[in-house]
Amino acid sequence: MFLPSIQDVRKAAERIKPYIHRTPVLSSKSINQLVGADIYFKCENFQKVGAFKYRGATNAVQSLSKEKIIKGVATHSSGNHAQALALAAKMRNTKAYIVMPSNSSKVKVEAVKGYGAEIIFCEPTLEARESTLEDVVKKTGATFIHPYNNFNVISGQGTSALELISDVSNLDYIITPVGGGGLLSGTLTTTSALSPSTKVIAAEPEGADDAYRSLIENRIVPSVNPKTICDGLLTSLGEMTFEIIRKNIYKIITVSDETVIRAMRLIWERMKIIVEPSSAITLGILFDNKIDLKGSKIGIILSGGNVDLEKLPWKIK
Amino acid sequence: MFLPSIQDVRKAAERIKPYIHRTPVLSSKSINQLVGADIYFKCENFQKVGAFKYRGATNAVQSLSKEKIIKGVATHSSGNHAQALALAAKMRNTKAYIVMPSNSSKVKVEAVKGYGAEIIFCEPTLEARESTLEDVVKKTGATFIHPYNNFNVISGQGTSALELISDVSNLDYIITPVGGGGLLSGTLTTTSALSPSTKVIAAEPEGADDAYRSLIENRIVPSVNPKTICDGLLTSLGEMTFEIIRKNIYKIITVSDETVIRAMRLIWERMKIIVEPSSAITLGILFDNKIDLKGSKIGIILSGGNVDLEKLPWKIK
Repeated sequence: MFLPSIQDVRKAAERIKPYIHRTPVLSSKSINQLVGADIYFKCENFQKVGAFKYRGATNAVQSLSKEKIIKGVATHSSGNHAQALALAAKMRNTKAYIVMPSNSSKVKVEAVKGYGAEIIFCEPTLEARESTLEDVVKKTGATFIHPYNNFNVISGQGTSALELISDVSNLDYIITPVGGGGLLSGTLTTTSALSPSTKVIAAEPEGADDAYRSLIENRIVPSVNPKTICDGLLTSLGEMTFEIIRKNIYKIITVSDETVIRAMRLIWERMKIIVEPSSAITLGILFDNKIDLKGSKIGIILSGGNVDLEKLPWKIK
Repeated sequence: MFLPSIQDVRKAAERIKPYIHRTPVLSSKSINQLVGADIYFKCENFQKVGAFKYRGATNAVQSLSKEKIIKGVATHSSGNHAQALALAAKMRNTKAYIVMPSNSSKVKVEAVKGYGAEIIFCEPTLEARESTLEDVVKKTGATFIHPYNNFNVISGQGTSALELISDVSNLDYIITPVGGGGLLSGTLTTTSALSPSTKVIAAEPEGADDAYRSLIENRIVPSVNPKTICDGLLTSLGEMTFEIIRKNIYKIITVSDETVIRAMRLIWERMKIIVEPSSAITLGILFDNKIDLKGSKIGIILSGGNVDLEKLPWKIK
């Protein structure tokens, strides 16, 4: 399998530089005291469209030839990749066709429309999404950009760790969430090349632990009926992401939704920044006793901040 | 009246430098597009204790002589000044006595206790607060640090605008909220000296418009039964803050709670940062048609981010 190398990540960084934010790295003394470690949060919640996904989508769109780009790009997604691809297409003056399930939230549909993409609704099943996308691609000639199992998307996602490592040296660990594995495999590509002594850990919801089980069984275990508030971490690994993860990862730690909520609220309260559950899960692995990271220097990639502010996961008075 | 000058603000900046965060200045392209202006947000919500108040409290505490500091400091406050003074005292290894009304929220009481202060509860009336404080000062010999009508507090609050002006030049306007007027008068002291062409505007809740009326009547109109969700902006001006404001301000604009909520939500959604209503009010003045700031370069001081996350001012599903 042809997998991205650190050179591909470096090329991606150059390519997407004019379009993305170089996100800040923040720390919180009170969170450090609480967990007994030294944490550097890479804030992809401040990235354009509110998530790291814009890095990969931009790299994929900017990599397409003039002949291909003229016909647009397409994907199926109801999440951050939909918005990311829509804006990335807009920045290259081309069209994005986004297949979304008919039960997608209004907020998300409006956001994608706001970036000028064409939305094609389908039944809320994986089969319908895939067949509708196939139709769209056939009809329009648009290029399908997979949300994570895509060479240029993975290379793009690796640029976040590239910035983190250049800002903070000698990290003992880097923690990312894992859903389809795009961010995780990009982070592994970068870290194993530039800071091989840094161990990469992934945080995965207990109710969607297909990646954890995939590592144990050494094959891609599909995600079936996942149940978690981490709505960005529901998908299965892809062939490319699994291969990179399998070879390079230190550990996957699963986290309960209860712990995710506790971590999310702590970040909101102490750091005054908004992160979504799928991001906060990374801090969550320091709360339970599944792994001892006390005294370590840790980089955490806060993947995104797209939260429905009318639907918070804690008790409201 | 002996009022702070820009030299006092500069001295304050040197004095508090080891203790405070130099807060970042953030921008949001989508908010700029929406309001048709170029806004630079000075993020005091990222300041220690979550508010600019820590600047003034630190300057006041660090300015006290060795003889005085040994007996501690005291104030009455149920808000950000209480936490700010508590932490400032702790940093100088002395005691803080905080008089708080008996109906203060548990969250705030815990926060003040967390910084090691001694809390003295009293009836929730201004009279009880003042007489209780007087007793405490008499008994302990502690120095009373007024939340805003205090030379060193005002000088300290002026350091936020000092940083903002050094980071962003040629601002047409700077907007701050106004409650007791500490932040506003500090900002005016700095801005009138260093950037006299920059007009300073204050945002005040419609339901607590005593500063607005004070300007019209050219005397301190007391705040009586204020009604607003901006819980940091309920107090009346003091003699010092009124004098500075009266002489230097461009305009006070009043804002409805409805507009405050809209502005607050927009900042949370687009910037992924948490600000309290008393901060968001500043952006609110760009939404109504009370003043035309289109095309301008504007600095906004986001004063704080201490919000009860279980009690948000918009509809929750």
